[in-house]
Amino acid sequence: PLSKLSNVGTTIFSQMTQLANENQAINLSQGFPDFPADPELLSLVDQYIKKGFNQYAPMGGMLPLKEEIAKKIEKSHQAVYHPDTEITVTAGGTQAIFTAIGTLVKDGDEVIIFEPAYDCYEPTVELFGGIVKRFKMTAPDYSIDWNEVKKLVSDKTKLIILNNPNNPAGKILNEKDLQELISIVRGTSIFILSDEVYENIVFDGRQHLSVCKYPELKERSFLVASFGKLFHVTGWKIGYCAAPKNLTDEFRKVHQFNVFSVNTPIQLAFADYMRNEENYLNLSQFFQQKRDLIRNGLSGTSFELLDCEGTYFQAVKYDKISDKKDIDFAHELTINHKVATVPFSSFYKDKLNENVIRLCFAKKDETLEKALENLSKI
Amino acid sequence: PLSKLSNVGTTIFSQMTQLANENQAINLSQGFPDFPADPELLSLVDQYIKKGFNQYAPMGGMLPLKEEIAKKIEKSHQAVYHPDTEITVTAGGTQAIFTAIGTLVKDGDEVIIFEPAYDCYEPTVELFGGIVKRFKMTAPDYSIDWNEVKKLVSDKTKLIILNNPNNPAGKILNEKDLQELISIVRGTSIFILSDEVYENIVFDGRQHLSVCKYPELKERSFLVASFGKLFHVTGWKIGYCAAPKNLTDEFRKVHQFNVFSVNTPIQLAFADYMRNEENYLNLSQFFQQKRDLIRNGLSGTSFELLDCEGTYFQAVKYDKISDKKDIDFAHELTINHKVATVPFSSFYKDKLNENVIRLCFAKKDETLEKALENLSKI
Ligand SMILES: CSCCC(=O)C(=O)O
Ligand SMILES: CSCCC(=O)C(=O)O
Repeated sequence: PLSKLSNVGTTIFSQMTQLANENQAINLSQGFPDFPADPELLSLVDQYIKKGFNQYAPMGGMLPLKEEIAKKIEKSHQAVYHPDTEITVTAGGTQAIFTAIGTLVKDGDEVIIFEPAYDCYEPTVELFGGIVKRFKMTAPDYSIDWNEVKKLVSDKTKLIILNNPNNPAGKILNEKDLQELISIVRGTSIFILSDEVYENIVFDGRQHLSVCKYPELKERSFLVASFGKLFHVTGWKIGYCAAPKNLTDEFRKVHQFNVFSVNTPIQLAFADYMRNEENYLNLSQFFQQKRDLIRNGLSGTSFELLDCEGTYFQAVKYDKISDKKDIDFAHELTINHKVATVPFSSFYKDKLNENVIRLCFAKKDETLEKALENLSKI
Repeated sequence: PLSKLSNVGTTIFSQMTQLANENQAINLSQGFPDFPADPELLSLVDQYIKKGFNQYAPMGGMLPLKEEIAKKIEKSHQAVYHPDTEITVTAGGTQAIFTAIGTLVKDGDEVIIFEPAYDCYEPTVELFGGIVKRFKMTAPDYSIDWNEVKKLVSDKTKLIILNNPNNPAGKILNEKDLQELISIVRGTSIFILSDEVYENIVFDGRQHLSVCKYPELKERSFLVASFGKLFHVTGWKIGYCAAPKNLTDEFRKVHQFNVFSVNTPIQLAFADYMRNEENYLNLSQFFQQKRDLIRNGLSGTSFELLDCEGTYFQAVKYDKISDKKDIDFAHELTINHKVATVPFSSFYKDKLNENVIRLCFAKKDETLEKALENLSKI
């Protein structure tokens, strides 16, 4: 085979968005908002472009943005990163994940992931010659049995990948989870890649516990976040990776040959925009209203709501409606009922089907209401 | 060592730009313009942002842009690529190169490169487990002895990387070079990665001969280009990779997990802007005036001009001025004479020193004139 990924197909997100478009269905599949970003942010980009900030940014990112990122992390998690040497601006969260894996994983290294898992982790590990070990979280509560996780650890374990809050299950790790994780990595040379792109979207007064809050985790972690998710501009493709200097040094060796640097005027606009905390502090509240809208709308139907502690995704079980596999059910929903979703089986290597689909509620209320209208007729 | 690139340092371009800034020197080192891009292009981006095109682009790129790219290639090189299945928009030329190498190169594969070489090729090949074989082009004419290249080919040769026009030497490949290349790859399964980011900058009426002009090369080539170089916006970080469908299919498997997709509003702006050919057809003429300005200015000095057939870089020999190594001479020039350049030794694995430095002339005439004033005093 030509590449190491010869058995990889097109991501489910592209597939379902395409199917949605072909069927003029309401697209609750791929995770992006259908409402506009803040006009203030849009104007800032225009201003920097017109002022002529259109040439290469420094490789690690524009300093004003790195400083704002460091401040945000310190305020949110009481963790200190040095802006210039411990934060790297990336071409989206995905590129940060790819680069962190490429930095660490060598032939034969083992990497532990938790399923359901965002679909880039596994092929990226394999591209760099690593071997994936999986712990399967399952419906309805997607909790982690840490004794089982311990059994996956060997002297070849190089990396544990977390996604917290978890996409698609909407679960967040609690204090006990993080203490269990600490007990696993303490005294080992295992690294952590923590994908926290939904960190600012947690509900019901819950606290997002970042790995950087725990010194024993922070020292070995690549922490990944995304401005696309934070500011409703997924199409701008900018995120970052925060990591201790020794890890950032290595990360940047790969980063500089992968993308070298990231869009200059948008970095400057983000820096200005972040200076006003109000531009992101109310995100949980904003999305909780939408989550509740969708939960209330579905509660009278035959769909069964699973917990949603964070992210902008609601998982629902459809056992009472159909015994089709989730992928087939999702196609049917899109084609016949004009609502596109993502089947949970896509987030498991073995395509585990538990009759669960994922609905993205980062949508205008009227979009959600229309979708609910269609779904409640089923 | 933590990563496979543990002996890699910061790129010379970042180093010299930093040294230039610290010394308030005129920066003729890193390859980016100091003049503004076309206001029409800047406004187009603003328009698409304000219209709300700010969510994920399709993974392979926005169709209108891919169509304009295909048209441009067909007009320039009489080569046909299918917009939707053979062109992928990337987060810059560098990301296209990284992804193409990641697509093809597996442990033990051999990759032939031509030195002086842009500094990302070699570490990227090594990151993916490949072994680099080098043909060294040397001053003053940087020509290729194809019989020597043939000796580098083995049954492990997976890929040949070309950079045409060549950065930093300013050389372009001629018909004979390309015929020699064809005779080498014919009947083999060797692939080609052709970095043609300076394709629209060739001088004295010369023709840039793209690999895609030659069916026997096109069928096995990843062709990489850059909008940053084409439209004077290196800080926007968008480029593309054109390749036959079977190669593009594999390329996208890596691309979708590396960056997934690329800035949406800028893609749409580029598509509109490219519809007017005048926006790029005169680039050679535009830069030839600058090249000649710098050549005329240096012709009365002790610097010795090497040929410059393409790119926006002029190579000069300084034997008559100093017997310092080029890296030391470049530092001295920056600190004492306030002109930053790039030493050619950085483009050779073994740091071959031939007393040659590279001057970027993608600068305002007044910038070039000030630099010339400083240089002519030496
Ligand atoms: C990169 S496309 C996927 C977007 C996303 O975050 C999701 O739908 O899970
Ligand atoms: C990515 S920084 C290098 C820019 C460039 O093309 C050069 O200076 O050669």
